[in-house]
Amino acid sequence: MKLKMMYSFLNSDLSIIEKELEETIHADSPLLRQASLHLLQAGGKRIRPVFVLLAGKFGNYDINVTKNIAMALELIHTASLVHDDVIDDAELRRGRPTIKAKWDNRIAMYTGDYIFARSLELITNIENPLAHQILSNTIVEVCIGEIEQIKDKYRFDQNIKDYFRRIKRKTALLIAVSLQLGAISAGVEERIHRKLFQFGYYVGMSFQITDDILDFTGTEKELGKPAGGDLLQGNLTLPVFFAMEDANIRTKIVRVHEDMPRSEIDEIISLIKNSSAIERSVQISDRYLDKAISLLDELPDNRANKTLKEIARYIGKRKF
Amino acid sequence: MKLKMMYSFLNSDLSIIEKELEETIHADSPLLRQASLHLLQAGGKRIRPVFVLLAGKFGNYDINVTKNIAMALELIHTASLVHDDVIDDAELRRGRPTIKAKWDNRIAMYTGDYIFARSLELITNIENPLAHQILSNTIVEVCIGEIEQIKDKYRFDQNIKDYFRRIKRKTALLIAVSLQLGAISAGVEERIHRKLFQFGYYVGMSFQITDDILDFTGTEKELGKPAGGDLLQGNLTLPVFFAMEDANIRTKIVRVHEDMPRSEIDEIISLIKNSSAIERSVQISDRYLDKAISLLDELPDNRANKTLKEIARYIGKRKF
Repeated sequence: MKLKMMYSFLNSDLSIIEKELEETIHADSPLLRQASLHLLQAGGKRIRPVFVLLAGKFGNYDINVTKNIAMALELIHTASLVHDDVIDDAELRRGRPTIKAKWDNRIAMYTGDYIFARSLELITNIENPLAHQILSNTIVEVCIGEIEQIKDKYRFDQNIKDYFRRIKRKTALLIAVSLQLGAISAGVEERIHRKLFQFGYYVGMSFQITDDILDFTGTEKELGKPAGGDLLQGNLTLPVFFAMEDANIRTKIVRVHEDMPRSEIDEIISLIKNSSAIERSVQISDRYLDKAISLLDELPDNRANKTLKEIARYIGKRKF
Repeated sequence: MKLKMMYSFLNSDLSIIEKELEETIHADSPLLRQASLHLLQAGGKRIRPVFVLLAGKFGNYDINVTKNIAMALELIHTASLVHDDVIDDAELRRGRPTIKAKWDNRIAMYTGDYIFARSLELITNIENPLAHQILSNTIVEVCIGEIEQIKDKYRFDQNIKDYFRRIKRKTALLIAVSLQLGAISAGVEERIHRKLFQFGYYVGMSFQITDDILDFTGTEKELGKPAGGDLLQGNLTLPVFFAMEDANIRTKIVRVHEDMPRSEIDEIISLIKNSSAIERSVQISDRYLDKAISLLDELPDNRANKTLKEIARYIGKRKF
């Protein structure tokens, strides 16, 4: 089953969100509007809004309340992508030129700031102080994660724990919080919204590990950018840590640098793909998914629960 | 009288803020802590916290509530300086190397994001929804202002209205909001906190115009950076608009570019200083100050009111 089919019962609510997202980033400045829309219209999976809405279904679901959380989280995610592209010097994102490629790094920085600021406006519609605290703490953690990622680039002596801490901050937390805040916005009790947070954390870890695997195994067409980009940019991901256990491969990996010729980086990608690194990474990703799915048994058995289970299973099998 | 003497009765509260500001930006990441402290410790006038506290004095002043607003606004200001320095490619700020000069642009971007995120955490301590709305709207406007500033660089056909709109967004709004939110945090009634906003807006306009004048008339020692930096970076300020009314000076100004030799830019600075542009700019600045001071007559006559008047007068005369 395709991902979108799993949550087709949310379609009308998701279109409201889609429409209002575009309205939200209207700006007096044509440049800003153009740059913001550029990324937003490129699509993306909108998986965070989906999680927000599904979590809301565990309580007194009201789209007019919960949509603010859904949009805010999608905008925060989008803003962080814009700043990520500056950091990574990326040329392509979702198969289209990045803002920094199409305009420049400075425009990209303020477009990110602007999208982020718009998300704050939406959050003011949420009256629950706990929601504000959770969200602001999360944003702090995401920022710390981003800085750590810069610091750890091309640092080949780092620990596999550094990797897990990084992807927690970079990805898993925001997904966990999507579920938790979706639930809180619908008045879900603490015992339940904490479990939804935990589910989101596990799914987010698996999601990022899968992303990191696909960066090696995906084709340029599937990825919307050439394979091996993470490694070339000095971002060490789970397959790299496993591959480096082989002294021979390690010797080659530690020589990776930004301007390495394509033929050399392609050779290293082949070595990693032909080692056990990919399979072992898949196992770790699956373990997180199993934990996520088990947790769902402790939550009320409803349609949202069933959908979360299907999405979690899908994430484990996705090819791009 | 020196600026600091005017509000010495706030000293103990300002030290609380100073101490907690440093504690707030503690981070697990040593790089992030170092980069954030670097700018924060360089000082700055802390004029926003002073305005916040003074406005709080118009209501039921409680330092434990109002300090959160004061710190949040100082951090938002600091974060915007960090991102400004990226945009302006500035090497010096407050007489010290900028974060982007000491580390790099990418660290500067995320340090800004991080400081900003910390400010959001503080804001969660404020329970008034109106305060959140005002603040998030302001941040959106500040971001739009920043983008407009990039767009307008070296655009010599722009209008003087573009300049006023830019400095409103860049400076005046945040000062106006400092006063308004300080008042709101102390339960001040709407009629009063709106007037305090307006006072802050006038003072902020004057403050930025004075800054823009000093960029021409100040010495390198006073400014902590070489004079004429704004023009060299393509930021057209009030004296430039007035100077360009002279066709002869205009011809030279429109040739300004980033890599213009120092001798040429120095010549243009001299021409501007010897024209009536500076004096006319001072007059505009003074007019804003007069409006600000008149407004104070409509507010309760207390010590804070008296201090605001002294600060406004000081701002009109400051040399750096």
